[in-house]
Amino acid sequence: MKKSIGAKTIIFPTPVLVVGTYDQLGKPNAATCAWGGICCSSPAAVAVSFRENRHTYAAISQRKAFTVSIPSEKYLKEADYFGVFSGKTEDKFASVGLTAARSEIVDAPYVSEFPLVLECSLLQCVRIGIHTQFIGEIKNVLVEESVLNKEGLPDIKKINPLVFDPAMRVYFGIGQYLDDAFKVEKKKPA
Amino acid sequence: MKKSIGAKTIIFPTPVLVVGTYDQLGKPNAATCAWGGICCSSPAAVAVSFRENRHTYAAISQRKAFTVSIPSEKYLKEADYFGVFSGKTEDKFASVGLTAARSEIVDAPYVSEFPLVLECSLLQCVRIGIHTQFIGEIKNVLVEESVLNKEGLPDIKKINPLVFDPAMRVYFGIGQYLDDAFKVEKKKPA
Repeated sequence: MKKSIGAKTIIFPTPVLVVGTYDQLGKPNAATCAWGGICCSSPAAVAVSFRENRHTYAAISQRKAFTVSIPSEKYLKEADYFGVFSGKTEDKFASVGLTAARSEIVDAPYVSEFPLVLECSLLQCVRIGIHTQFIGEIKNVLVEESVLNKEGLPDIKKINPLVFDPAMRVYFGIGQYLDDAFKVEKKKPA
Repeated sequence: MKKSIGAKTIIFPTPVLVVGTYDQLGKPNAATCAWGGICCSSPAAVAVSFRENRHTYAAISQRKAFTVSIPSEKYLKEADYFGVFSGKTEDKFASVGLTAARSEIVDAPYVSEFPLVLECSLLQCVRIGIHTQFIGEIKNVLVEESVLNKEGLPDIKKINPLVFDPAMRVYFGIGQYLDDAFKVEKKKPA
């Protein structure tokens, strides 16, 4: 039996995306966002949503670029901090003791200590309501060498990403491997 | 040391969203999508991306409504099936033996056996590249009573959602509770 709980913003899992930008003064900033995800395969694109009063909103609008850094579990406190405080009033990288590395291909910094980074140039802004969605073309993905698997791809269990639970506002980790995807397709005769 | 692996569509975690629609003949369909996520708090909104040749693309365009059902781990095979085959050529609900329930508030069906359902009306279509993003206003959330916690909210561990790993194209489960979010905010003096 299903119960209605109203118009709530709940899906599981929700990601923890740390969005890196330079502001108009060139100061690097990092802001955590759970409203986002991959939105297109070609061009490869990712969407992240911000309110208009956020420092990141102005920075992406001006620089037309951002990065998305995926924190490991071990950086939970820093990722949480990046989501609470504003780059308008402080240098968040300095506050948490992490390193802003300059992307070589887009005009934005990323969190050097985080294992997976998407380097993005702005494709579109979509005004929805109190949030505006910034759609970025993923120009390149940077991966810490220690978390690559033998296929040369990032290993989710070595990255140990965070999962955000928007219902209870808590963080979870990633669980166990369950199965390969598209198995029924693989089983079809050639 | 970071290595460039090119412009790939990889973030962790990526959700497994089963999008329910009625087609032009009124036949219910379910299609699995990993390119999506919450995109706005007010109005509550969720984005899901589909290619133009997909049955779901035509159905959402015509009906201006869809649902998002979140499968539990135990429905991995059915969710995977929904992502491989097309509603153009078959009745996928009948194929996997699951039930299409009619939403009482939007013109779309949902997967009755899945524990969490968003009922959405179409707000915007955003053409990005080979994928078009459908932004739906979340008009209501339906939750199976057995997965509600004492606060009346869906319990992520009882729901046991799937995580998709787009790098290796495999499914993972949800791990353990790690910490509350926005803790630094809670610690600030009032």
